Amino acid sequence: MSQENLHISLNVQASGGKLDELETPCIVIDRRRLRRTIELMRNLAEQAGVRLRPHVKTHKSLALASHQLTYGGAAGICASKPDEARVFIEAGVHDVLLAYPVVDGRKLDRVMTAGLHHRTRLGFIADSHEGVAAIEDAARRHDMRVGIHLKVDVGLHRVGVDPASTAAIDVARAMAAAPHLDFRGLLSHAGHAYGASSVAEIAEIAEAERRTLLDLAERIRNVGIPVTELSVGSTPSVLAAASFEGLTEIRPGNYVFLDATALRLGVATSEQVSFSVLATVVSRNGHYAIIDAGSKVLSSDKGAHGLGGDGFGWAYRDGPAGEGFLVERLSEEHGWIAHGHRELPIGARVRIVPNHSCVVANLVGRAWLVENNCVVDSWAMEARAKLL
Amino acid sequence: MSQENLHISLNVQASGGKLDELETPCIVIDRRRLRRTIELMRNLAEQAGVRLRPHVKTHKSLALASHQLTYGGAAGICASKPDEARVFIEAGVHDVLLAYPVVDGRKLDRVMTAGLHHRTRLGFIADSHEGVAAIEDAARRHDMRVGIHLKVDVGLHRVGVDPASTAAIDVARAMAAAPHLDFRGLLSHAGHAYGASSVAEIAEIAEAERRTLLDLAERIRNVGIPVTELSVGSTPSVLAAASFEGLTEIRPGNYVFLDATALRLGVATSEQVSFSVLATVVSRNGHYAIIDAGSKVLSSDKGAHGLGGDGFGWAYRDGPAGEGFLVERLSEEHGWIAHGHRELPIGARVRIVPNHSCVVANLVGRAWLVENNCVVDSWAMEARAKLL
Repeated sequence: MSQENLHISLNVQASGGKLDELETPCIVIDRRRLRRTIELMRNLAEQAGVRLRPHVKTHKSLALASHQLTYGGAAGICASKPDEARVFIEAGVHDVLLAYPVVDGRKLDRVMTAGLHHRTRLGFIADSHEGVAAIEDAARRHDMRVGIHLKVDVGLHRVGVDPASTAAIDVARAMAAAPHLDFRGLLSHAGHAYGASSVAEIAEIAEAERRTLLDLAERIRNVGIPVTELSVGSTPSVLAAASFEGLTEIRPGNYVFLDATALRLGVATSEQVSFSVLATVVSRNGHYAIIDAGSKVLSSDKGAHGLGGDGFGWAYRDGPAGEGFLVERLSEEHGWIAHGHRELPIGARVRIVPNHSCVVANLVGRAWLVENNCVVDSWAMEARAKLL
Repeated sequence: MSQENLHISLNVQASGGKLDELETPCIVIDRRRLRRTIELMRNLAEQAGVRLRPHVKTHKSLALASHQLTYGGAAGICASKPDEARVFIEAGVHDVLLAYPVVDGRKLDRVMTAGLHHRTRLGFIADSHEGVAAIEDAARRHDMRVGIHLKVDVGLHRVGVDPASTAAIDVARAMAAAPHLDFRGLLSHAGHAYGASSVAEIAEIAEAERRTLLDLAERIRNVGIPVTELSVGSTPSVLAAASFEGLTEIRPGNYVFLDATALRLGVATSEQVSFSVLATVVSRNGHYAIIDAGSKVLSSDKGAHGLGGDGFGWAYRDGPAGEGFLVERLSEEHGWIAHGHRELPIGARVRIVPNHSCVVANLVGRAWLVENNCVVDSWAMEARAKLL
């Protein structure tokens, strides 16, 4: 995909402005740090010998996907929802995996119609016979073949077949037998890594995920079904993993931005976090400085999958190098910062590292790129709030 | 404001469809219940002898504001953010109160420009000298006079002057002395009512709020400043209050929809809740049925202001009359329902009463109106995600 193929919406007026002049609340992305996180993951994938397929649910932005695809080592993208996937298909991304167990044929129809039109390499996932039937039926309606992965539960216990079950083999058989499906292999998301208490524990989860996929692939091959792809996800488990042997693909999403959750887990340093929310103190009482960023900007997420720590992010007055203030509470449009009688007057601006950048990008829908306190670009999140 | 003046975006194709045919996740509003909640609050305000100024941050919808203004007894509206207020000003709402302590002159400029153009009766709030100066400066730039209220902290300890302080009198004096400001009176939000454990406790909070405003108004009058308006907010405190004597205005927002928080607090019955999220089971394991509504639809809010109960809402398979399932956990696009081995297969649809309807409407941006399981209308939330 070239930059020219992307419908990038830029607010040219803002470029060249100062960070200090941006109205708040808003998302600020440090462009240099972003480049480094993108390069770090490209190098990690190259050294591990796995394909990199970034999850775009984190940023929902065509401009950012373009960076991942052009210099970030990405071979394609992964999306959460059918209409989110369509935004990237229609912008020209040639390899799109819809990593969600869709069971509604109308949604699949829209994705396949777009994929046919743009000659996209499409992939889907399922963990049930109902899911396989829905995708096979839709592909038949479109007279096309699409890729399919068996989603495997590696410990989050959300979606995915139980890898020890006979059902896992049965669903893989149904995929392999379906005339309009190319059974590619297995796919997992070790989201329970977000509940780990150390990097070593995350590494153990990643290793268990790898072994689980290798074992199940072997069982499926033993019944005569070829398994070519083994795809794993989650930024923490990818950053902490000791081995990728036997795996073919990684699908991290959050790595481009990072956030307070990545810091809490120990898989990133504060100097790596490229994403923050700029906010202004609008009121102050004896205990709290009140900022203009509440749950409608920061979200109420404590972390991913409901796993997390205290508060709703860390606020820094003089850049993330200074001493941070915990954002203790949120109303819809207010954040409560315990000021501890430190200097934080009305009108002061803070940069907040939120708990979960993936949900913030979805709420705000536009980000300002900064370098040396200058605004150098503005990106839209074109696939924001695509719920279907 | 007449319906004709509103730029209402309708999805006409959907009208006449069946509830069972809507793609999920989506917001469903029961039109009959909505009418009843709107009428209930109109009657409450009439009987209490107070003006009703609904807070539109709950719904962010021009169509719904039109209902509140045309038959719902509303004398004007109240908004959270400058650009949210502008949506309603530009649609022709003639009396708009911006109930947020704005300190950035650029935001005030946009609201005043729109207000001048549409001849809107504008009101603002402040709780600091910085806030008063920002509004006075902006009004002077526009050569206009605007209304201003002193925001009073009645116990939430978020924004607002301490009612027992001399600062409260000082800021009121600054408002009364400012040449482009009409000092109208006092305004409060007893948001701590959301943390109450009984309706009686909420009634006590409402009564304390009323007495606090009356006392402070008396102190301000004693220094020679007229105080004409005393405005209180919050749906729970308005529904539970025993007396409105001396007050002039109420600003409930959530009352039109209600939610699991209103039920938890005991200020509404489940038959009154007009708002729900329709979702579909997409996967099922031994413990959980997984639905296609996660934190990007339901939000991670436990309730308002971070106060709340367990889980993220209640899901009903056969309408809210049946037995509910707790939505225990949320990922971004998945809800985790503990099925307890009850019938909830892949493809089953549930209606969820969320913890906090105000944030859900902001995330989704469109709602389907239903009556007798038929889709009778579709409303946009035109002021959704106006962050500035």
